[in-house]
Amino acid sequence: MARKKQIGNLKVIMLGGMNEIGKNLAVIEYEDDIIMVDCGMGFPDEDMLGVDLVIPDTKYLEDNCDRIRGLFITHGHEDHIGAIPYILRKFDVPIYGTNLALGILENKLAEHTVTFAPKLNVVRVGDVIKVGQFEVEFIRVNHSIADACCLAIKTPAGTILHTGDFKLDLTPIEGEMLDITRLGQLGQEGIKLLMCESTNAERPGYTPSEKKVGQALNNIFMMNSDKRIVIATFSSNVHRVQQIINISIAHGRKVAITGRSMLNVVSAALRLGYMTLPEDLLIDLSDIDRYSPEKVTIITTGTQGEPMSALYRMAFGSHDKVKLTPSDLVVISASAIPGNEKMVTKIINELVKNGIGVFKDDSVAVHVSGHACQEEIKLMMALTRPLYFIPIHGEYKHLAANRALALDMGIPAENIFIPNLGDVVEITPDGASISGTVPAGKLLIDGYGIGDIGAVVLRDRKHLAQDGIIAIVTSIDFTYRTVLSGPDVVSRGFVYVKESEELVESIRQIAEDTVNDCLDHNIMDHTEIKAEIKTALSKFIFINTGRKPMILPIIMSV
Amino acid sequence: MARKKQIGNLKVIMLGGMNEIGKNLAVIEYEDDIIMVDCGMGFPDEDMLGVDLVIPDTKYLEDNCDRIRGLFITHGHEDHIGAIPYILRKFDVPIYGTNLALGILENKLAEHTVTFAPKLNVVRVGDVIKVGQFEVEFIRVNHSIADACCLAIKTPAGTILHTGDFKLDLTPIEGEMLDITRLGQLGQEGIKLLMCESTNAERPGYTPSEKKVGQALNNIFMMNSDKRIVIATFSSNVHRVQQIINISIAHGRKVAITGRSMLNVVSAALRLGYMTLPEDLLIDLSDIDRYSPEKVTIITTGTQGEPMSALYRMAFGSHDKVKLTPSDLVVISASAIPGNEKMVTKIINELVKNGIGVFKDDSVAVHVSGHACQEEIKLMMALTRPLYFIPIHGEYKHLAANRALALDMGIPAENIFIPNLGDVVEITPDGASISGTVPAGKLLIDGYGIGDIGAVVLRDRKHLAQDGIIAIVTSIDFTYRTVLSGPDVVSRGFVYVKESEELVESIRQIAEDTVNDCLDHNIMDHTEIKAEIKTALSKFIFINTGRKPMILPIIMSV
Repeated sequence: MARKKQIGNLKVIMLGGMNEIGKNLAVIEYEDDIIMVDCGMGFPDEDMLGVDLVIPDTKYLEDNCDRIRGLFITHGHEDHIGAIPYILRKFDVPIYGTNLALGILENKLAEHTVTFAPKLNVVRVGDVIKVGQFEVEFIRVNHSIADACCLAIKTPAGTILHTGDFKLDLTPIEGEMLDITRLGQLGQEGIKLLMCESTNAERPGYTPSEKKVGQALNNIFMMNSDKRIVIATFSSNVHRVQQIINISIAHGRKVAITGRSMLNVVSAALRLGYMTLPEDLLIDLSDIDRYSPEKVTIITTGTQGEPMSALYRMAFGSHDKVKLTPSDLVVISASAIPGNEKMVTKIINELVKNGIGVFKDDSVAVHVSGHACQEEIKLMMALTRPLYFIPIHGEYKHLAANRALALDMGIPAENIFIPNLGDVVEITPDGASISGTVPAGKLLIDGYGIGDIGAVVLRDRKHLAQDGIIAIVTSIDFTYRTVLSGPDVVSRGFVYVKESEELVESIRQIAEDTVNDCLDHNIMDHTEIKAEIKTALSKFIFINTGRKPMILPIIMSV
Repeated sequence: MARKKQIGNLKVIMLGGMNEIGKNLAVIEYEDDIIMVDCGMGFPDEDMLGVDLVIPDTKYLEDNCDRIRGLFITHGHEDHIGAIPYILRKFDVPIYGTNLALGILENKLAEHTVTFAPKLNVVRVGDVIKVGQFEVEFIRVNHSIADACCLAIKTPAGTILHTGDFKLDLTPIEGEMLDITRLGQLGQEGIKLLMCESTNAERPGYTPSEKKVGQALNNIFMMNSDKRIVIATFSSNVHRVQQIINISIAHGRKVAITGRSMLNVVSAALRLGYMTLPEDLLIDLSDIDRYSPEKVTIITTGTQGEPMSALYRMAFGSHDKVKLTPSDLVVISASAIPGNEKMVTKIINELVKNGIGVFKDDSVAVHVSGHACQEEIKLMMALTRPLYFIPIHGEYKHLAANRALALDMGIPAENIFIPNLGDVVEITPDGASISGTVPAGKLLIDGYGIGDIGAVVLRDRKHLAQDGIIAIVTSIDFTYRTVLSGPDVVSRGFVYVKESEELVESIRQIAEDTVNDCLDHNIMDHTEIKAEIKTALSKFIFINTGRKPMILPIIMSV
């Protein structure tokens, strides 16, 4: 078979989104052209003490920034746009996305200092953007945020379909359903590679429609017409918020909105026309007591039990404007993200303890997922009929479950790839393989620092967290081999010193003996003396307390 | 109506088991006599950094130890016996329990130093123990450990039924089902107070029989007759372990057991006759490679993703005797305790990544709960028909759900109590009420220390964990108002110093300026100088890094 020589290879590199929940970033290359799909942030694991955020390591992109033709955003969730303020400190790139995604991004960028002025290009669903040798088509999907898209990326070497996050909703609240017709057309034209999200790949069946939530909420409003209703939900789910508003109107309630991110997103959504509401509906949180409780709905943040959130403060009685009583009803219209279950339960316990009724998603359908379950993923595969398949967005178990679905749908095992971060999946006219790797990983963000926290710092924080620290400070005159002052013992996070005076005095005594021993034996090297103190104290402290605090000997040479 | 004057009041005090998952301890008093029911330990919340265990504060019992007639154990789980080694350092008490519970307790006590030699009294199901004015009857229940009992506690003021942990299993693996006949008889005789466990009070229906697990496991063994099978489960669930052994025998497999607690419990269960197995069945873990993989079952600990457990080490390739490959199958026959989900997922991701199949309880019925669901709890209420009701064992939301069940079953709201820890529920011939409180709370155990870690130490550990520590040490000759040495800056867990030399030097410089400023202005007080350093540095560091490390100024007076 004759092969066209001019067709180059297509390369796909995941820098986020493979076993790295919450930081999505795909790199697609054809010859000299690079595009990026999404650029998200994630939250730290529990062993990354003190870390605020985690973003993808973009060293590879920095090194190749002259080749990057655009960053395409599938939707406006943090795990798809959150790292953009950080990359705009390092290189310049035009950004393409729908109205709401860019609106949320703009709000975010306003809180950051960036080196390169953001070049935001608003795209409508159906638009095709040409950059370099790529043609990127934005196609409607359903998701838990408005205006979410998947991307059909045409290249001279074939078409890639990147699903972004999606579900199939036959009765969406606003807008249209997943454009299965267009996906089917593309499938008939031929899809070289499908990159499909995996979040719910372990769950059988279909994800219910967002409309289900409205029905459940409407029932709750009917059954609780004598109560004030407080509903917590994800701020970015503007359709959910719109439903809560519509139901409140239907039941003759005013609506108060609280929580910084909720206020931000609602104002952006109203401005951009993604939400509508009658003029006199919203009331200020300060005015809620002017209305009888059963005439008020409060929409709030705090679904994940965050200790600073409005819901947390309401539950624990420290909210300055909302005091909850048994005549309130709380609805948590969300599910707990893995790792947050205990924090959410803490809020529920406190509410229940104070006689406040709580509805959450395990008892009634007050929440539905925004992600495709198994049958929807299979529908995506059946429509697009790809030659190659890469499951994306999820922990390894999700990716593996998605791979199993692909096998089920008849995609051969050798055409399915679960690359590691940084692996280069190279598609040639002859086949596909992992042909190399580029630098990849995570950068930890703590305060203003990007990547200045590494393994050593985290290990020290973990050590400090476990058993605290003991500093032993000694001033020594090395000329006369005399201790001039100390050793002084200062501890934090170890024991309550006033109740352990004897122990602290023993520690001081051992340190003193060790230092004198060193000086007597002509050991004058700081490092050596410190090592001796550390060894002597570690042993003594472990035997006497069963603990291993960090021991920090400090020698002052006077 | 004539009232018998001689009847005293009955008092019930929960010192653990109310909104305090995993530390169960009930105190029951009649006149001068006190008995305790269970004495468990729990695990620390994530904000109790470095804490190993949590036990109930037993100050009240210490103060009244001459009145304590006995400690009655419902079953041998850690959350019901784990604090006993600690109370035996403080006061003496005869302990009553069934064979297996006391067997496990004995193993535990062997690892501790206690002040009072344990007086262990083995009880058989059906026995009635008379202590003081109490008669305590041990009644069979089903649970996830063998030989679990509930207690009927007869007093001159009426009978209390304490359920312990229970479920109804119509087809238990060994022994008999929950003794509903005896419970019904007691109900007919009259139960004054029912104290009923609440763990699954939010779940409708009935908990499935342990036998279901055997059926599911048998299917897995049939479908995977070409693989080595590794099964992780709770060591205390001897019936589960027995089932795994029986199925292994049926499929012609040898069994190797690993994990310290698994080996402990199996040896105790074999010794006491709770488990049986043919002589040549068990093989040593060192010998597994002598058998072909499909002829071996490995039973292990590590269901909660504990980083030191055998399963974790197998998954991450650091187990010295078991190397897993795609010809292994891993079954996690347990559910994740709230808070442990992410750690369990970490293991599953790693296994799947290495091509190893995993079965867990969300896909097939490889685990059933040991706790009563709503219909079983209602059965308990229907049989015992108590006058008063106290839901126990659970977080507040579980207790509240159990209360709702009691209301449903016709127990009047004023007869149901959800006391706080330490509240005295007093039952008089006229009624019941909370009549006072006694000291109660939790004691944190870190290493060998009991209760020497308080709020200050934990707050410091949290601070250290977030942003690390900076110590600034200065030797000053106050006579001549001169800095003799330093300030030296030492940090741990803050930033990686080699990459932040400029920042560290600025910190040093600010500290030096501050000290000199103080000396120039005649400020000679250590506390004052330290406060000045702290203020200056906190500001500077926050503005430049966005972080708030602990700042520890140390002044050496030379």
